[in-house]
Amino acid sequence: MSRVYNFSAGPSTLPESVLLQAQQELLEWRGSGMSVMEMSHRGKHFAIIAEELESDLRSLLAIPDNYKVLFLQGGASAQFSLIPQNLLNGKTKACYIKTGAWSEKAVSDAQNYCEVVLTASSEAEHYSHVPEPATWLIDSDAAYLHYTSNETIHGVEFPDIPDSKGLPLVSDMSSNILSRPVDISQFGLIYAGTQKNMGPSGVTIVIVRDDLIGHAPKTTPSVFNYAEQAKNQSMLNTPATYNWYLVGLVLKWLQAQGGVAAIEQRNIAKAAKLYQAIDQSALYHNPVAIPYRSRMNVPFILADDGLDKAFISAAEAQGLYELKGHRSVGGMRASIYNAMPDAGVEALIAFMAEFERSH
Amino acid sequence: MSRVYNFSAGPSTLPESVLLQAQQELLEWRGSGMSVMEMSHRGKHFAIIAEELESDLRSLLAIPDNYKVLFLQGGASAQFSLIPQNLLNGKTKACYIKTGAWSEKAVSDAQNYCEVVLTASSEAEHYSHVPEPATWLIDSDAAYLHYTSNETIHGVEFPDIPDSKGLPLVSDMSSNILSRPVDISQFGLIYAGTQKNMGPSGVTIVIVRDDLIGHAPKTTPSVFNYAEQAKNQSMLNTPATYNWYLVGLVLKWLQAQGGVAAIEQRNIAKAAKLYQAIDQSALYHNPVAIPYRSRMNVPFILADDGLDKAFISAAEAQGLYELKGHRSVGGMRASIYNAMPDAGVEALIAFMAEFERSH
Repeated sequence: MSRVYNFSAGPSTLPESVLLQAQQELLEWRGSGMSVMEMSHRGKHFAIIAEELESDLRSLLAIPDNYKVLFLQGGASAQFSLIPQNLLNGKTKACYIKTGAWSEKAVSDAQNYCEVVLTASSEAEHYSHVPEPATWLIDSDAAYLHYTSNETIHGVEFPDIPDSKGLPLVSDMSSNILSRPVDISQFGLIYAGTQKNMGPSGVTIVIVRDDLIGHAPKTTPSVFNYAEQAKNQSMLNTPATYNWYLVGLVLKWLQAQGGVAAIEQRNIAKAAKLYQAIDQSALYHNPVAIPYRSRMNVPFILADDGLDKAFISAAEAQGLYELKGHRSVGGMRASIYNAMPDAGVEALIAFMAEFERSH
Repeated sequence: MSRVYNFSAGPSTLPESVLLQAQQELLEWRGSGMSVMEMSHRGKHFAIIAEELESDLRSLLAIPDNYKVLFLQGGASAQFSLIPQNLLNGKTKACYIKTGAWSEKAVSDAQNYCEVVLTASSEAEHYSHVPEPATWLIDSDAAYLHYTSNETIHGVEFPDIPDSKGLPLVSDMSSNILSRPVDISQFGLIYAGTQKNMGPSGVTIVIVRDDLIGHAPKTTPSVFNYAEQAKNQSMLNTPATYNWYLVGLVLKWLQAQGGVAAIEQRNIAKAAKLYQAIDQSALYHNPVAIPYRSRMNVPFILADDGLDKAFISAAEAQGLYELKGHRSVGGMRASIYNAMPDAGVEALIAFMAEFERSH
């Protein structure tokens, strides 16, 4: 079999040119005599990889100098617990907005550390939209306001940066980081697992404003204390070195695509095409209110769920993989991150039309 | 440049056949149409990789059925905090043996969670040996006894499994796991980062006896709660999938070498040759008492430290890399893990003799 179009929600498809470069350099990196996997993280070769990684990310996202960039382990899910540990700083409350399964988990874990003020929730409407800001409850005594900028399971994305009324704004951007420009200066902290838009799994990016760190209690594991890791360039202990290298390759690929503003235009076009195909069909349906539809994860259900299995197996026969929706919502889901080529989306649309005609 | 002999303490050299297989499969794994990096961790292909990984490790180490095997993120250093969180179970003390820099760090982090009973320490003798068991102070009210089976910086290794007088025995085996057979049933918990004998960095193995888990307080991050991860086959959140795959390749390589008992014989022979060369020279000196010398990490100092720079640059000219000792102890260090071929050790010995003759 040749390579397929892989619509997995994460880990997810990577640019073929990145894989080819990793393949070419696998046994030896730039005349170093060794694989990146074998390099000491304290050595001169890996120092170049680490420096380029941070400077490329800072440049792609225009990260201001008063923000630290950390490359940690544990996934965004670990941050659900580590953010309150690092940021509460003596406060006893934090505000959370619930717009899907991932913000639900963030709330659930935060409750082990503080009182969660539920600023807004669309749970009663099956997470089909983002609640109107006029209805939000923001407690000025809270340490921060947390939201999930894109919900991979429910396919809901914030169209704009929310107004946190002065609280430090914290965002889980795991599934839409680097897909659109964001004004970092409006945030206290941004975090993201790498396995959607940045590379394989195994690295968690934390971008955090200087003044918010340094107040973690001593029961925060030292390798997850933001201030300790910032002082040590994320090398308080051995980082996931090969994963850093792979993320670095993806960032260089993104630069070659024209950067975040350019990829946003492609993402807008890819998503618009797919939603149009869904909306114009009688068989497929997307339940999310139009202004809040995700550009990254497009869930859709078939009018007759008895056709689900036939849909998935016919799609695989055409080289269209991982279209099954998350078990909690059923139906289908196409994840179309930065690395999904236009041709993949077009092949999916053509297949969906053909399947509708024949069923 | 061609590939060198890399004596790095970790990340460290990998078997060339493993790198070649990873290179060959990089764009597509076993007809799956995708790279392992791109696979959903919930998909049928990755399920095979995950199952083979656990069953190969269980078989290589003869892990009894009443032990869970977890594949986590964060490194062994994260476990310095996570072990007390998971294992204290209401107790307020834990026993620790200090035999080098790594057990020092384990003690320092554990003190944030409980009273540390210092069972034994060789700190006053510059970590040149393991203190005599007759002198150990074991508190029967402690939750466990922790030791570091091999100290990478000081080059000290426990020749036998210590007698914990009935306490659950906990061991950081990061730097000698899979280098020699161990009777797992004598342990409560074994943990190890992968970047020495098991693959690249990014995975932490935890092998833990069933009855010890399930008592973590709710302030333990859920992805680091052993019972939660055990229930979810280490996939409570997205694991470091590609790293799991690479560790799996190293385990299959080890099986092909004849397994742990066979590699131990090679490790004994490699280390004996190198220590003999050091002991017979007038220029090189290893400070560790003979019964406690590490088979994995061989530190040595030059009689004249003014020669250190010349030694390192002459070694690199011969393709012998990463021989500089840790900054905290100075001198040199040759890490000769499972994947270091005999030829690498012989080349080092020949170079050392030649350097001594010419200086």
